[in-house]
Formats: sequence, C-alpha cells, structure tokens
Amino acid sequence: MQTGTLSEKLAQFDEQWAPRIIGELNGQHVKVAKLEGPFEWHHHAAADEFFLVMAGCLTIELRDKDNVRLEEGDYCIVPQGTEHRPVAGDGEAHVLLFEPASTQNTGNLQNERTVQDPEWI
Amino acid sequence: MQTGTLSEKLAQFDEQWAPRIIGELNGQHVKVAKLEGPFEWHHHAAADEFFLVMAGCLTIELRDKDNVRLEEGDYCIVPQGTEHRPVAGDGEAHVLLFEPASTQNTGNLQNERTVQDPEWI
Repeated sequence: MQTGTLSEKLAQFDEQWAPRIIGELNGQHVKVAKLEGPFEWHHHAAADEFFLVMAGCLTIELRDKDNVRLEEGDYCIVPQGTEHRPVAGDGEAHVLLFEPASTQNTGNLQNERTVQDPEWI
Repeated sequence: MQTGTLSEKLAQFDEQWAPRIIGELNGQHVKVAKLEGPFEWHHHAAADEFFLVMAGCLTIELRDKDNVRLEEGDYCIVPQGTEHRPVAGDGEAHVLLFEPASTQNTGNLQNERTVQDPEWI
C-alpha cells in the first residue's frame, strides 16, 4: 500500500522544476514538484498532464490561447500535443501532477532542465 | 483545456458516496467525492485507486492488514484486487480520486450505492 502525506513529501527536497514520484497506479505516476519562475516551452506528444496547485500560483502559458492562471486549489489538464510553458509566480509554487509513467518534465525538449529518471520519494 | 477549482466543484453537490468527474486524462478520471460513515467492502479487479483527503478523515479498512488512516493532505493508492472498505469519520470527508475511467464506486459489488455513470461537473 503506497501511502504518505503531501507536506512531508515536499519537505524532502528543495530542487525546483524536478518532480519527485510519490506513487504509481495504472501506468501513471503521481508526482509533486516545487516550481518558481518560468520553465521551458514544450509539449508532451502522447501524454495529457494534470496539475493541481497546492501552494503559490502557477500560470500555464499557451500558444494562441489565453493563459490559464492557477492558484491554490485550482487544477488544469494540458492535453497531449499542446505546447505550453508553466510559469510559477508569487514565490515558490507547489504542485501535484498526474501523468503517464514515461512522461519527462521537458516533453519534446531535451536540455539541462530535463530530468531523465525522476526520483521516488 | 479542462480547468477548475476543487472547492467550487465540491460546492456543486451534496450527495455522499457518489463521486463526480472533474477531468479526464490518459484514460483516467479525476473525481471528487463527499464521504461520511462506512461504505461497502469491495475491490476493483483491474483498477488501482488513488485517494487524497482534502478535508476530514478517511480510514481505508483492509482484510488481514492494518487499516490506513488518512487525514487532510494524506494519500494512498489501493492496488487492484485489494478488498477494502472506506470509512469516513469526523463528519464529512472530501476526497480527490484518480482512477481508470471505467471504475465504478462499488467495484465488484452491485447494489443501491452503485453509481452506474458518474456525473461530470
């Protein structure tokens, strides 16, 4: 039985933009992440991505569409293939993610911010 | 883009033990539910089930294993095939669920508490 407390999981790391895996079910991962400032424009070719903001503020910037601004308790699902750029404001944001187990944080982009094998905590 | 606020979704219904769908991704549903008192013993033959407690207290009773007690901010994943009985205490509990889109609330059991087609909100 996988079980835990979100606040305790978040207290286990400081690294930003490096999601940690806290659970796996039905081929999907449940992750938590700490975010601050702008990330990279990217998309996930075959993965829809769920974001739930637990603290702070996260804006999902989109091409040719209005940005989606998420505050604590707000969620959104970014459909596969949708280019987006997460930007965290008001200090550090804490988010819960659901996405397929193979999903990389930078999607189609490979750079120094790509996390190849997210750490389990 | 599916987006919303958990508290606003929960304010849209009063019915207990009848999860509402608030999002779909990768063949999975994201749901919210209001729970109070004991539910039914059941299992899901082919679905792992994620619970996150947002308010109140939820105990996952298990056969031949210690119960898992979840308070606000606690989560657990009940593996497929695992017989369990959710029991919500300390008044009404509010939970976020993540599970395959086909998952019924009573699993292998069909009775008056079975929700055939959960409502989207």
